[in-house]
Amino acid sequence: VAKDKDALAQLGEFGFISRVTRRLSSGEDVVLGPGDDAAVVAAPDRRVVACTDVLVDGRHFRRDWSSATDVGHRAAAANLADIAAMGARPTALLVGLSMPDDLPVSWAEELADGLNDEAELAGASVVGGDTVASPVLIIAVTALGDLQGRAPVTRSGAKAGDLLAVAGRLGWAAAGITVLSRGFRSPGALVTAHRRPQVPYAAGPVAAVLGATSMIDVSDGLLADLGHIAEASQVAIDVSTTALRIPVSMRDAGQALGVDPAHWVLSGGDDHALAATFPPDVLLGPDWTVVGRVGSGCGVTVDGQIFEAEAGWDHFKSKRAA
Amino acid sequence: VAKDKDALAQLGEFGFISRVTRRLSSGEDVVLGPGDDAAVVAAPDRRVVACTDVLVDGRHFRRDWSSATDVGHRAAAANLADIAAMGARPTALLVGLSMPDDLPVSWAEELADGLNDEAELAGASVVGGDTVASPVLIIAVTALGDLQGRAPVTRSGAKAGDLLAVAGRLGWAAAGITVLSRGFRSPGALVTAHRRPQVPYAAGPVAAVLGATSMIDVSDGLLADLGHIAEASQVAIDVSTTALRIPVSMRDAGQALGVDPAHWVLSGGDDHALAATFPPDVLLGPDWTVVGRVGSGCGVTVDGQIFEAEAGWDHFKSKRAA
Repeated sequence: VAKDKDALAQLGEFGFISRVTRRLSSGEDVVLGPGDDAAVVAAPDRRVVACTDVLVDGRHFRRDWSSATDVGHRAAAANLADIAAMGARPTALLVGLSMPDDLPVSWAEELADGLNDEAELAGASVVGGDTVASPVLIIAVTALGDLQGRAPVTRSGAKAGDLLAVAGRLGWAAAGITVLSRGFRSPGALVTAHRRPQVPYAAGPVAAVLGATSMIDVSDGLLADLGHIAEASQVAIDVSTTALRIPVSMRDAGQALGVDPAHWVLSGGDDHALAATFPPDVLLGPDWTVVGRVGSGCGVTVDGQIFEAEAGWDHFKSKRAA
Repeated sequence: VAKDKDALAQLGEFGFISRVTRRLSSGEDVVLGPGDDAAVVAAPDRRVVACTDVLVDGRHFRRDWSSATDVGHRAAAANLADIAAMGARPTALLVGLSMPDDLPVSWAEELADGLNDEAELAGASVVGGDTVASPVLIIAVTALGDLQGRAPVTRSGAKAGDLLAVAGRLGWAAAGITVLSRGFRSPGALVTAHRRPQVPYAAGPVAAVLGATSMIDVSDGLLADLGHIAEASQVAIDVSTTALRIPVSMRDAGQALGVDPAHWVLSGGDDHALAATFPPDVLLGPDWTVVGRVGSGCGVTVDGQIFEAEAGWDHFKSKRAA
């Protein structure tokens, strides 16, 4: 039987699971990997960080825009970034896969490859999961992480006077979605950024060591996510656009498509950059770029002004393109 | 606005999440609960047990057969039982909820109540999750647990000469589904068993302390799940029907519906009983009942014979009634 034509319906649940788990590699935090009722993962400092993120076919990804491997990378990255945003080191992923009976097994295998490879990039392993038949393809990923003895960096510790800094890319994935939604396939750098975010995983623990007072994964857009920090910390945050780098390919794409690239940078999610606040005397390393300041008050401003645009995605209010 | 008529589309993702998380209670293992990028949960012995289970509307539950609260209990129980089956104490749940835009918020709130209450029954707390809009209602739950210093009890340690024992109910939920699928609502005990399994959570750690050599959560049916132990341990397992209790209500329902109740007991899943093997000299407490023996060879038999019936559910091969 040719791999590509195996339907899940033929392989059965257990045949499918054995086929997929064969492709996974186990890192040193895996005490007991896939194949039993549950996995066992190291939690060296007697605490475990845990989060869950769900991706729905046609809403968070499109199979005509992204390969199965790309989707695996993105699904893993969305979760691993949340772990990093607590200042923790990712250790493990569990995957709840709901999929149509007629999905080619090769698609699921390539999804597993993407999940596995992105987990490896972050130092983590896929340790378990569940597979069910469903009318819609939905990928629910849970990530676990290790705080390495440090306190978690929450959203609520920012203080007036702190610096705001960002690690990773802003607006690239959003620009890539705009490019794809207008029917183009280039610039390749932007399209690839949507397909496989480059998450600065190591910058999360680094920020914690540097004394970050708050941190968040930028998944809904910088302004929207800073809004969560501002609200949780009861502070005001101002972003300086002069500090935000807009790469040439994004500027060109903006001109070609009639979009102000600042909108992508300020409101686009899915690059999974990290945003954090630091005491003003911090010496930031190369991962982190200062892009604003924390003040007293409330809300988020850009160059001292309210930014007039949709600030980010709310999954129920605005159906996104992808 | 009346609670029952709020659509998620109106409340938005964040409004919805705040409404639901207000209903959750946090136990002593919760270091940081819902509301940040990730939760932090105690892992006292430097390891964490983790598993994921996915439930699909119309396949694993039916909203006309079970209330939202019932579905929450079942979704939590399915995962918490897997933790107990490793010999661990459940500590936390994360919930990835994919739901139609027009699902009443009251339904989701009651689902959260069910998840929260079942977690509490097992000594665990709901610590986080994600909510996305989707054409199909799908509940992906991840459970975490604490081994309390013991080795995990896997599927692979059963030895020839061991006793086979069971804790919890067998066949009740399956009988309940048959009753419901024939259009009846009674006997209530069976229907309720389908809606809210009574999982013997404490029996898992007890078995580990007693020296269980292997253990599994009975979710696909006793014979199917014993098949996993037999395969992983490379042993033969024989079940003695004389040791299996068939309650009067099940016997009566079997007669009324023309079903041999032994089929429910041997092949029905979803009660989330625990099956384990123990060295022959073990002194079992009241939780555990000996129902068979482990021998050399392979496969699972009933009273020494191959049992001629569908041995359990395989989600892709046989679409279940509920």
